[in-house]
Formats: sequence, C-alpha cells, structure tokens
Amino acid sequence: MSYIAPVKDMLFDIEHLARIEEIAKLPGFEEAGLDTAQAVLEECARFNQDVVAPLNVAGDRNPSSFKDGAVTTTPGFKDAFAQYASGGWQGLQHPADFGGQGLPKTIGAACGEMLNSANMSFALCPLLSDGAIEALLTAGSDDLKSTYLEKLVSGQWTGTMNLTEPQAGSDLAMVRSRAEPQPDGTYKVFGTKIYITYGEHDMAENIVHLVLARVTGAPEGVKGISLFVVPKFMVGKDGALGERNDVHCVSIEHKLGIKASPTAVLQYGDHGGAVGYIVGQENRGLEYMFIMMNSARYAVGMQGIAIAERAYQHAVAYARERVQSRPVDGSMNTSAPIIHHPDVKRMLMTMRAYTEGCRAMASVAAAAYDASHHHPDADARKQNQAFYEFMVPLVKGFSTEMSLEVTSLGVQVHGGMGFIEETGAAQYYRDAKILTIYEGTTAIQANDLVGRKTARDGGQTAKAIAAQIETTEAELAKRDSADAHAVAKRLKAAREAFVEVVDFVAGQTKASPNAVFSGSVPYLMLAGNLVAGWQLARSLVIAEDLAQAGTEAAFMHAKVATARFYAEHILNKAPGLRDSIVEGAESVTALALDAF
Amino acid sequence: MSYIAPVKDMLFDIEHLARIEEIAKLPGFEEAGLDTAQAVLEECARFNQDVVAPLNVAGDRNPSSFKDGAVTTTPGFKDAFAQYASGGWQGLQHPADFGGQGLPKTIGAACGEMLNSANMSFALCPLLSDGAIEALLTAGSDDLKSTYLEKLVSGQWTGTMNLTEPQAGSDLAMVRSRAEPQPDGTYKVFGTKIYITYGEHDMAENIVHLVLARVTGAPEGVKGISLFVVPKFMVGKDGALGERNDVHCVSIEHKLGIKASPTAVLQYGDHGGAVGYIVGQENRGLEYMFIMMNSARYAVGMQGIAIAERAYQHAVAYARERVQSRPVDGSMNTSAPIIHHPDVKRMLMTMRAYTEGCRAMASVAAAAYDASHHHPDADARKQNQAFYEFMVPLVKGFSTEMSLEVTSLGVQVHGGMGFIEETGAAQYYRDAKILTIYEGTTAIQANDLVGRKTARDGGQTAKAIAAQIETTEAELAKRDSADAHAVAKRLKAAREAFVEVVDFVAGQTKASPNAVFSGSVPYLMLAGNLVAGWQLARSLVIAEDLAQAGTEAAFMHAKVATARFYAEHILNKAPGLRDSIVEGAESVTALALDAF
Repeated sequence: MSYIAPVKDMLFDIEHLARIEEIAKLPGFEEAGLDTAQAVLEECARFNQDVVAPLNVAGDRNPSSFKDGAVTTTPGFKDAFAQYASGGWQGLQHPADFGGQGLPKTIGAACGEMLNSANMSFALCPLLSDGAIEALLTAGSDDLKSTYLEKLVSGQWTGTMNLTEPQAGSDLAMVRSRAEPQPDGTYKVFGTKIYITYGEHDMAENIVHLVLARVTGAPEGVKGISLFVVPKFMVGKDGALGERNDVHCVSIEHKLGIKASPTAVLQYGDHGGAVGYIVGQENRGLEYMFIMMNSARYAVGMQGIAIAERAYQHAVAYARERVQSRPVDGSMNTSAPIIHHPDVKRMLMTMRAYTEGCRAMASVAAAAYDASHHHPDADARKQNQAFYEFMVPLVKGFSTEMSLEVTSLGVQVHGGMGFIEETGAAQYYRDAKILTIYEGTTAIQANDLVGRKTARDGGQTAKAIAAQIETTEAELAKRDSADAHAVAKRLKAAREAFVEVVDFVAGQTKASPNAVFSGSVPYLMLAGNLVAGWQLARSLVIAEDLAQAGTEAAFMHAKVATARFYAEHILNKAPGLRDSIVEGAESVTALALDAF
Repeated sequence: MSYIAPVKDMLFDIEHLARIEEIAKLPGFEEAGLDTAQAVLEECARFNQDVVAPLNVAGDRNPSSFKDGAVTTTPGFKDAFAQYASGGWQGLQHPADFGGQGLPKTIGAACGEMLNSANMSFALCPLLSDGAIEALLTAGSDDLKSTYLEKLVSGQWTGTMNLTEPQAGSDLAMVRSRAEPQPDGTYKVFGTKIYITYGEHDMAENIVHLVLARVTGAPEGVKGISLFVVPKFMVGKDGALGERNDVHCVSIEHKLGIKASPTAVLQYGDHGGAVGYIVGQENRGLEYMFIMMNSARYAVGMQGIAIAERAYQHAVAYARERVQSRPVDGSMNTSAPIIHHPDVKRMLMTMRAYTEGCRAMASVAAAAYDASHHHPDADARKQNQAFYEFMVPLVKGFSTEMSLEVTSLGVQVHGGMGFIEETGAAQYYRDAKILTIYEGTTAIQANDLVGRKTARDGGQTAKAIAAQIETTEAELAKRDSADAHAVAKRLKAAREAFVEVVDFVAGQTKASPNAVFSGSVPYLMLAGNLVAGWQLARSLVIAEDLAQAGTEAAFMHAKVATARFYAEHILNKAPGLRDSIVEGAESVTALALDAF
C-alpha cells in the first residue's frame, strides 16, 4: 500500500491556522514563508513516498536482528538513511551554524509527520538524533558542540536517549547508573539502560548516547542525576573515530510493533567504565533531559497523527475496492464498494476527523513554539511559550490515544482481511500501541497537564485558551450556515465542560490530589479533544469563505464536512468526561486495594 | 501469568441476576440449581486453570503450522482437547439423548468464559463444534443426527462453519460454492472456503464441515443457499471412518492474533467433488446457518468478556508488583506499587467494570435463552425469546468492542513492559482484535439490532427493556445510599437517551435508512452500555442488602464500588452517543465519496 503525503491539508493548516506568513516576519525566519513551506513539503513528500514508505512492510517482516553485540537493520534502511542524511533532512530545523537549515518547527513538524507516516520504525532514528541535538545545543559545552553537533545534524552520526533502567521507568528518581569523575574531567559511566531506541545499529558510523547517571556522592532522587555524552566510538581531536567505548548492546527486545526499530539493552562499563562527558552541570541532568523529552514528546504526538493518516489511507483504498452488499438506501441494485455503506463512512470519517483535528492542533502548537523562540517581544515569547507548553501533553497524549482508535478502526474497515498480517492494516495497530507509552505514558502527560500546566498558574493559561475558543464560537454564530451553527453548539458545550474541569483541577489539586489525579487522563482527553475540535472549527470558517470565493471548492467543502463530523461525533464526548472528572472522582479510588 | 476463574462473581450473577433457582423450576432443568452451578463451575475452573490456561502463551509462540495439507497444532493442545472431551465439557449444554449433560446456558456460558479466558485459541475448536451440533439438532435428518451428533458431543470429532469465500464475506448472497445432486441423494460439493477456524487440525479423528453452497439451478442471492455436511473422512454405516473426502486444506493464515487456532483455506472438490449431505431442505441454508451463527455470536461475546477478564487479572498482578513513584497524596514516603496511583486504579476499574458489566448482561441473556426454550408457558417463551434476541447483538457487539479497550488498557498498565511480547499483555491485545470482526462485524451486529431487533417490532422490545430499567431506577431511588443515588442518576440519563434513539430508529429506518444506519454502531454501543450498566445497578441493590446482612461483605462492597464506577465513567457516555445518533447523522454521509 503506497503512501501519498497529505500536502494540501498540511499547507492549509500551515497557511491558515499556523499563519506561516506571520512566522516569516520573525527574525531568523525571513525565508520561511508559504512558498518555502510548499517547496519543502513537496520535496519531502517525494522522498518519503519513494524512498522511505516502501520499506515499511519490509521492516515489519524482516526486523532488526541482534548477533554478537551487533544489530543489523532491515535491508534497505541503511541506504535510505544515507539518502535522508544527504538530502539534509536531519538538519531541517537545526541551526545553520552546525550545518542545519534553521527552518521553523511549523514546517519541520509536517515533514516529521510524513517521515513517520512513511515508516515509523525508520523515523525513530532521526527522532532520537533530534533530541540529542537539542540537548547539546542547550546545555553542551563548546567542546561537545564542536565535536558532535555537525556530525549529528548531517546524519553522519545518530543520537540516543538513555533514561530507563529496569527499576526506573516513569520514576527517574530511581536511576542507579553511576558516573565516577576522572582527573582529566571525564567520567567513567557504569550501569544498565533498557528500551534504548536505536541504541545499536548499522546505519551510521557512530552513535552518540545521552545518558542519565549519578555522579559519585550525588544526592538521592532526581536532584542527583546528571547527563552525559557517551559515544559508541571515541572521537579524536580531529574528529576521527578511535577505539570502541565501553558501552555494549547485550540484547534487543521482541516487541508488539515498530519491529524494525531496534530497542536495545545497553551495558555501560563492564570493561572498566565507559568514557562519558558531562553535559552542562552536575545534578542538572533531569532539566536537560526534559529539553530532549519535550521535543520528543511533541514528535511522538506527530507519530500518532502520522500513523493515523497512513491507516486512514490504507482503509480508504480498501473501502473503495472491496465490493460487498447493497447500499441500505436501495440506491444501487448490485453489491457496492463498501465505502457506500454508512457505517464504513462513519469509521472513515472518524479516522479522518481525528487525524485532521490533531494535525491542526499540532500545527498551531508548532507555530507557538517558533514564536516563543523568535518573537522580538518578550511578552509575546512568554505567551507563546505558555501556550506551547500547554499543548505538548495534548499533542503527545491525545494524538497518540486517538491513534489507537484510528488504527483499530483501520483494521475493522478491512474486516477479516484486517486480521491477516499480509494486508498491512494490523501493522499500524501494533506499531501505534507504543505511542501512548514511550516518552511518558498518557498518565505521565496528564500529570504534567494537571500539575505544571494547570494547577501551577491557577488555570490561567487554560482559561486564556478557553477565551480564544469563545471568540471562535462567536465567529461561528455570526455565520449564515447550518454547519457553522452545529459546530458552534458542540464547541460551546465542550468549552464550558473544559472550564468547569479547569476550575476543579486548579482548585483541588492541593486539597484533594487523589480526586484530581483520578481524572487526569480524562482531563487530558477532554482538553485535547477540545483544542483539536477548535482548530477544525477555525478551519471551517476559513474553508467556507474560501469555498465561496471559489478557491479549491471541493477541498474546502470536505474540510467543512470533516469539521462538522468532528463536532458531532468526537467533540460531543466532552460533557460526559466533565461529569466523570468532576462528579466521579470518588468512585475511581473507592475499591479497597485487596479487592482488585 | 496464571488464571484464576472468577467463580464467585459468576455465581453472584447466576444466583441473583440470572436467578438460577427459577430456571431450575423449568421442565428439563430440575437438577440445574445453584448447587449444580457451583459444583460445575468449580470443576470447570480447576480444569481450565490447570490444563488449558498454561498452554495459552505456548500457542502464541509456537502456533499451528501447515505442511503438505496437514495442520499440526501447538504441542499440548491435542492432549488438552482429549481431556476436555473425556471430561464431558463439549456436551455440557447438549441433549442427554446424544450423550450431553443438558445443562442450561446460564451455567454453560460461565464455563465458556473460563475456557476462553484460559486460552481463546484453544477454545475456538469446541466453540465451532457447538455451532455444528446446534445446526444438526435443529435441521439435520435422523440419519445425520445418528451418524454425527454423538461423536461431536463427545468431542471425538469436531465441527466447523464454512461460510466465507474470497468474494463473499459479510455478503453471503455472493456465495459461489456449488453442490451437484447425485442419484443416491448425496451431493458433490465444489468451491473454495476461507477463514475456516480449525478447518484442519490434528486434535480429533474426524472433522465435520458445515458448508454453505448453491445447488445446481438454485435461485440467485441468499435464497439459493443450502447447507451441507461434508466430513473430512467418510463415515461408514457402522460409524467407522472410511476414505478421505475431497476437501483439503491448502494453507492457513498468518494472523495478528489467536495464532494457535488454525484459520484454514479449504478447497472442495478438486478431485471429482466432495461428498456432501444436505442439512434440512434445499435453499434454506441461510436460515440454518443463522442458528449456528446466533449461538456463535453469543459465544464470541463471551470471548470478549473472557479475554477482558484475563487481561484484567494480568494487569492487576503487575500493578501490585511494579514499584514506581510516590503516591500523589503523600500517603507514602517511598515509591509505591503502581496500583496506588489514581490513574492506574482508573484503568483497572475501567477494565473491571466493563468485564463485570458485560458478564452480568450475558448471564441474564443466557437465562432468557433457557426460559425461551424450556418455559411451559408460550407467552413467557415468546417474551424471553424476544429479550434474548435483542441481547445477542449487544452481547456480541458491545462485549467485544469493550474488550479492545480493556486489552489496550491492559498493555498500558504495564507501560514499556506491555509492549514487549514476553510480558504476555500484548497477546490479549492482538487476540482480542478478531472478536469485533468474526461471526459478523460490529456493524453487522448493529444492522441486526436496527433492522430485525428494533425497527421490525416498532421498538416494542426495546421499550419493554427500558420500562424494566425504570423499575430498577425506582428501586435505587428508594434506597438510603449515596452510591445508589449516583447510579440512579446516570442510569436514568442513559435510559432516556436510549429511548430517544429507539424512537429515532423505529421511526426513521424506512424513511431515512442512511441516517439510521449512520448511527447503528453508536446505537449498539449505547444499548450494550445501558444494559450492562443496568445489570450492575441491579447488582448494587442486591449487594448492598447482602452486605448489610453480613454476607461476604468485602465482596459485596466491591460490587457496589464497581457498579458506581461503571455508572460514572462508562454509562455516562450514553447521552453523547444519543446526540451523535439523533442529531449527527447528516455529517456521517456528507463528504463526497471522491473526497475521502
């Protein structure tokens, strides 16, 4: 099943929702207007459609394999990654100083979606490199920057994140890996790290591991964690690769999905200690790791959107082709392609609406990220930063949760064929399941949303968003269209539900933490649902106007239809969630622990 | 991960909701009171826990394999099936005339749940035999009955259902397999059948295929389909096995889940024609097949409950053991088992509440089935029949859809470990996905609910159920308990939503079929949710009284807590669904077909 990048839909969001022309007014982004976006997206689409997408099924059937400490990736991956690197795709959003192209996230996010739609297992390698690059840019010494950044940005080397240990999953306070300071300023790193994506592979000359560990004598808990660079091969002054460092892959996992992406267990220091270089200051590792993690969380949200899009395309193709039963309305006297059946339409519309809604949300979040870094006005930077940070758990949490539903519907549309691995629909279902888990489970995202993003500022950011939504409601109400009014009705109900929940969360987190955290994930789902629905409501306003002006009328009508479907079949879940959160907290924790 | 059958919960349902003592008053069920139920369930639990459950993981890792026309099942399966047969489990619900035990479905259903919890792949073999037995009992000639029934009931032979062909999935009108009448009254059968569960295997001496085919000259469409028995080995007058019939397995599928269960492609008649024996009359095959299918649909609903229960047990065990992070309420000063965290409780409660709710619904449906067959009063039989038939799409559709959510949550509770196949949680997630597809997809169940079960009688059966629910609401309202009142509130809202939808469906199916069928699956989800929630509401009333009387207080308190959780976190989705169905139909079909 081939993949066609939804360039038109992405450009709609970039132009009308993220407002790229405003971003192009920011210092450093002068070249990054709509024309650039279009050119980059079209080139990116070609590359991913032609080079990366065809390897997706192969990666599942012939995954990465492990032997004698080495990982061999799926045939074709190494070559595709070389093309990815030489095409400059790894450096898209990274600074020109280190060989990147310095494009805004607003453009980069769409490219990330394409790569992940094409092949999620493949895309994980560059995704992890992006995180390593961001951490070094933020906190690395000049030495580390000059040694590692150019090679990472060019894709000659790749990066990893090493957080998890067998006893330390979501709870990084329990990290036990240790680092012993050496007289020359380096450290010797010891420990076992698990779940290291592309922790070992054959696609690049070197691997730059970013590793959390405790310096000898450091405090307990998260305040005693430092961040280190540990290269697979030592790097000489001239940048030439030296001997193998003391970090070794001891196995890779047998997983439900993303099988082509090797998930390594890495052993540090079994032969005297792995040479590590500290990033920033001792004991501030968690802070730096959060930089990588926030970038990675957004990227994982894009993976949810990406795999939903791919599953949708696969399902639509099958629904057009598979002939089965007559339409219920008697409109045809013979068996029809199943896309004619209302329930198949309902499933496809659900897939489409979720995907478009989350894409729109992510695009707007990316624009806020760009403004938060590049806007000349400090207040504007701060506002955009607050908005972006509120969006990260929604983009990560909601887009990945919806991708489970969408990929499940994708199998369902295929009927019995969907359950047969050969068809390919099941791969998306299996691949997607990691998305609600890694880079922080949905519950971890929800804790972030409750604690740092809502309770901390007393719900101020959340309320500001609600106020913006109210403005959209007013715009919808003024219009002379049944679609706009139907959407306004659901948007209002959802926004009101959201505000009640925000009040509950902001007011009760300290006094009744169990009650609030009992509803944390439902709150995240409500908030993500609302913001995605809001962006589709904004899309409807724009699309109706453009359709009336005769611009791409068919595309615009589809956008309107999708927005209305979203409002009436997805956004309308919000009031029920409000009831669960605000009135149903007690029943979450009522059962005695030994009664489970 | 071991399995412990929830015998206590099953007996609660059987005693208090299904009211086994009433069933034991019916002719033919005199021995089938609570004591019998308890004895059978306990014995069944031992067998499944000790013999069948330990083979579940092995079946996934070392599935059925195909070579040279023969299927070799997972090591251990053949022996376990021999024990299943010799224990008399195959004959549990079948007539004593053919060697069965003639127990009510109310007891048999619980045993079916255990078998499927223990090992869904294994359980499929007896499940299909049950269908074949029912078809022969209903429509088979005395000759067919005497030749096949005893062997099937004893488990010496097994049965299959052959409906699907490559071009005929949900749409049986497109069946092309053909049967040529022979002078001796037999037929020669030709064609290809796909997705034949246990269509070939090594666990029994003979396989009795029930096959849909068209007799030469039969009308087009479903009115020209007949049902045939085609044995794998010919059977002599004395019951001895003769030569191989002309039906051959040409391959088995590589599937997402239930890997131990061989899914065969069967080729009929490549060497002159397979000998087939007609079941009942020519051209009435679909009618007979529906008998098998209705029995199988209920059984597949039980599979959903069964796998949800197993996933729940697996997740609870992990949540008790995995230590990670301090409780948010500061109640512990160290990291705690994750079952202490509110969101983990929320996930486990969701899994538990869905499972108990659907089990209660299925138990009550089984009782109605028993009364519909055994009640001496014709009116009572008719009423029970109508109720049972209304329940079948709900038990099948809702219990299997919920099992997708429950098994997904099961993986989620495990975090990263859930994605590693070794853990075992992922197997349930993969296995469950077939349940919303086979024996009629959820959409097919929903069509049945809309057409045959609601529109046909103008919503009468549905309204009768709503009236019963109102009685439960009144009972709840009279009670002096916050739990009862909280449940009553949600039950009332859900029941009112249901009634509005029933009016819409009953009123509009003819006039606006597209609008009604656009909401058919949401209607099924609403109805299933309501009935499961209603049964838990009934449970609450009983459990509160028993707790007060000092009977099993801890168990009863848990039942109350689960009922309230269900009402506040699951049942409260009903009003949103009503809006989607009644007000949102247009947006399901608004998008132009070429815009997808």
